[in-house]
Amino acid sequence: MWVGFDIGGTKLAIVVGDDDGHIAARRRRPIGAHGDPREDVDAMIADARELLAEAGVREDALRGVGVAAPGPIDPARGTVESPPNLAGWASVPIVDWFGEAFGVPVHLENDANAAALAEWRFGAGRGARHLIYLTMSTGVGGGLVLDGRLYRGAGGAGEVGHIPVEWNGETCGCGLRGCLEAYVGGRCWTQRLQRVTPADSRVAVLAGGAAQAKPEHVIAAVREGDAFARAELDRWNDYLARGLVGLAFAFDPDVFVLGTIAAAAGEELCLEPLRRKLAQNVWPVIGDHIGIRAASLGDEGPYYAALSAALEVADR
Amino acid sequence: MWVGFDIGGTKLAIVVGDDDGHIAARRRRPIGAHGDPREDVDAMIADARELLAEAGVREDALRGVGVAAPGPIDPARGTVESPPNLAGWASVPIVDWFGEAFGVPVHLENDANAAALAEWRFGAGRGARHLIYLTMSTGVGGGLVLDGRLYRGAGGAGEVGHIPVEWNGETCGCGLRGCLEAYVGGRCWTQRLQRVTPADSRVAVLAGGAAQAKPEHVIAAVREGDAFARAELDRWNDYLARGLVGLAFAFDPDVFVLGTIAAAAGEELCLEPLRRKLAQNVWPVIGDHIGIRAASLGDEGPYYAALSAALEVADR
Repeated sequence: MWVGFDIGGTKLAIVVGDDDGHIAARRRRPIGAHGDPREDVDAMIADARELLAEAGVREDALRGVGVAAPGPIDPARGTVESPPNLAGWASVPIVDWFGEAFGVPVHLENDANAAALAEWRFGAGRGARHLIYLTMSTGVGGGLVLDGRLYRGAGGAGEVGHIPVEWNGETCGCGLRGCLEAYVGGRCWTQRLQRVTPADSRVAVLAGGAAQAKPEHVIAAVREGDAFARAELDRWNDYLARGLVGLAFAFDPDVFVLGTIAAAAGEELCLEPLRRKLAQNVWPVIGDHIGIRAASLGDEGPYYAALSAALEVADR
Repeated sequence: MWVGFDIGGTKLAIVVGDDDGHIAARRRRPIGAHGDPREDVDAMIADARELLAEAGVREDALRGVGVAAPGPIDPARGTVESPPNLAGWASVPIVDWFGEAFGVPVHLENDANAAALAEWRFGAGRGARHLIYLTMSTGVGGGLVLDGRLYRGAGGAGEVGHIPVEWNGETCGCGLRGCLEAYVGGRCWTQRLQRVTPADSRVAVLAGGAAQAKPEHVIAAVREGDAFARAELDRWNDYLARGLVGLAFAFDPDVFVLGTIAAAAGEELCLEPLRRKLAQNVWPVIGDHIGIRAASLGDEGPYYAALSAALEVADR
């Protein structure tokens, strides 16, 4: 059995599960940082002990612990560097602390990689030999499963949100220009929508004002036939396709698995248009066999990401 | 000991060598296709037998045979499909034929992958864990060594010449628009040069007329201070950098190894400018550790590509 933690944007998911993805006990709670990382980690350890007891798992049956955390992390030192949602955390030696608490190997993984592993092991990417996962959330993170294992490169591989899709284009949150994320990341798209949405568009009505417009309102308005929303979604799909075309030629994967916004837009509004654009812009010998799927774990994703981070212990 | 063949643009390289890259015998000759693939392969087998005798290697000491061939190849069937320089070849079962002749395992690899392996095992990329090789020749092929082994994806990985660098940009030889190769491939750049080179530029003088202008004349003219040549080379480096930036964020490799044109342009005219552009357009945490090197095997490359294709037998 394994214990896993997923440190999310606002919530912490904790899970006790096995190799096959059977979850024996789980818990989700607000991050609730104390300002002191030692206290925060002790609370996480206490959570895990309660879940182990709840599942009837003795600590000596525990094979490893996994932690999925927002970057930057330092895999060599086993530290979480400065997650935006954990006040007071800086270079926290989480691998050492969990290792001392449980006496088992601990694996620390960045959240996008853990989510990619989760979709590959338990979600939309099961059975794929080569999978590229894109988070498609606030930002655009990525995780690469190549030849049946996570590929990390020199540590920072899979930062697919920062592939240039428009050289010298719009400024990204990262400070560079023309990144994929600058066009299709949730935060950047939201900023654009709040700037360009006409006051009389369906998007503005659904959002309660153009200044509150968000991607979810575009998706809803497209379903109602709104032309502005349609143009915005087309633009979003077009830029996303640029990124996928480059990734297809570089990696020739079996499948792209797309998260949050793409999953919300679904087959008709996102996946089908992307398949058409890929067919037009990638050689058939590569493009024809590449699947494009929505992430399937949804709200359960963090539990499986936590478990998948733990399962990497067995793969090391 | 290993026997390797490299089927090049005009020449065939044949080699007898060992695991460490020591070459016991070698031969290069024109491709000289008979129009009958069986005759061509019999001639190749005869070449190899002569080289084995010359090196004093008995056939029962042979561990495997490698063939590097231009794509498309079919790795599953072990066939060379239709190499442009071998008249009459179509779906030639080269793995079966060499296997029958020598009674050892045979590995067939596409030429860009074999060249990448050669630079990784014996050339500029020795010791790298993650290497991206770009041919930078007539076209822009690529080979990816990730986590210390060749990554092929579903079969077509590493087609980095067709990553889009200018959406809806210039038409590439492959029929798509805006591919990296459309801007920095030797054939495409040559076509452009013969169209845009001013009659009074140093490039035209060195080429014996603008209509004969080639990349080598640009490189020579830049060294003489010619402004037109400088602008052309800057443009070439700029587009190449766009490709490398995307690859850096996707793969986070240890090193890029660049062939032919980049190697001819060298440190000052190509590698240094590329390093500066990468530093400007890739996060330091990724870009700072990525080396950019010229391929170092040069004219000897085909021998090492042939040997490297054979060494893949041991890696299967």
